[in-house]
Amino acid sequence: MKKLYFYFDVVSPYAYLASTRITEIAEKYGCELQSEPVLLAGILQTHGQKGPAEIPSKRSHLIKDILRCAAEMDVPLVGPPTHPFNPLLALRSVLAVTENTERNKLAAALLMAVWGLGKDVADPKVILDVIQGLGMNGAEILERAQSDNVKMALRKNTEQAIAKGVFGVPTFVIDEELFWGNDRLDFLSDYLSGSDPLDKQKVQNILSRPSSAERTAKR
Amino acid sequence: MKKLYFYFDVVSPYAYLASTRITEIAEKYGCELQSEPVLLAGILQTHGQKGPAEIPSKRSHLIKDILRCAAEMDVPLVGPPTHPFNPLLALRSVLAVTENTERNKLAAALLMAVWGLGKDVADPKVILDVIQGLGMNGAEILERAQSDNVKMALRKNTEQAIAKGVFGVPTFVIDEELFWGNDRLDFLSDYLSGSDPLDKQKVQNILSRPSSAERTAKR
Repeated sequence: MKKLYFYFDVVSPYAYLASTRITEIAEKYGCELQSEPVLLAGILQTHGQKGPAEIPSKRSHLIKDILRCAAEMDVPLVGPPTHPFNPLLALRSVLAVTENTERNKLAAALLMAVWGLGKDVADPKVILDVIQGLGMNGAEILERAQSDNVKMALRKNTEQAIAKGVFGVPTFVIDEELFWGNDRLDFLSDYLSGSDPLDKQKVQNILSRPSSAERTAKR
Repeated sequence: MKKLYFYFDVVSPYAYLASTRITEIAEKYGCELQSEPVLLAGILQTHGQKGPAEIPSKRSHLIKDILRCAAEMDVPLVGPPTHPFNPLLALRSVLAVTENTERNKLAAALLMAVWGLGKDVADPKVILDVIQGLGMNGAEILERAQSDNVKMALRKNTEQAIAKGVFGVPTFVIDEELFWGNDRLDFLSDYLSGSDPLDKQKVQNILSRPSSAERTAKR
């Protein structure tokens, strides 16, 4: 069974939106979904890039956009009490779950908690509730989430994602192919169904062309 | 008749993709389209943001993505011989056309030339061909494009776009509402048809919430 990697950070509303559809897509095309928590802040820092919520007018556009997307997809969207917030414990708690199906469930449940239901997943008690709501051992998972092993695992996960070419979340990786964004799930589905229209030779042709201007061009 | 502003730079493939649909959308909903050339480099610089083609893995994703989008939309996509390239003369030539319908036509024709047909629109001869292909006076427009007035107009256009909240291209502005990206033309259409599901109170609620974490959080 092919693995379909789902790179996400709980701070990303688009990761939440995508999480409401990805299980069904993975099942439909016979893939094994694997949720991979990463620290978006680390990815942005590596690329010297700002997050969408860090540019005021983009933040305002983003909030309208996620509400429109949620309405179109018919999923709830309340959003967290503070944003950005510290996602570390939530991300680590996902990595503290070793069984894959359970890990996928916790990833989706945390994204739903923060974005769908408006919970504060920077609060350990909220995370505990979410884990217990899935019938898992919350105390044990939270304890493991704070171990050095798991802290290291999140760092490694983020570094490996960057090495694979991940520059934002959500990103889906299947084979060597990356699909970035909730709004690219249809392209992912095309790929999985064998109807991806991409001409790889054309990609290489365009990629190999040079630049003829620097960005510091005078206005 | 309401004005629908189309902010674009010829360096943007998504602006090209959007240009193939926007005339029809404006007509359908009885808006007057107004194409507004802006310098994307200036917008990115103001926001301290990198362009998508400036992050290697994002550039590779972008090229695949625009080819997939073009296939889905059934429009040609060849892409320019060099990228990024200097867009100044092309943008200024659009501003040198004073009549609105003709300006819209030149904007769309230049975007088609560079992205659909693979022409080098940093070359004055290519721009001349495009203008003459529309039956306009190429020599006159190109001369005006190089005047101080038009140079200043492009700078002002870019500054005004930023002041309106534009952070990328293509951006469509109607009333006070911004829609960013070729993939948001459907939300724009919803807005124009009166079926925008956006709850403005909810937008304000979310916008007013505080941050509880800095991006420099340790990994």
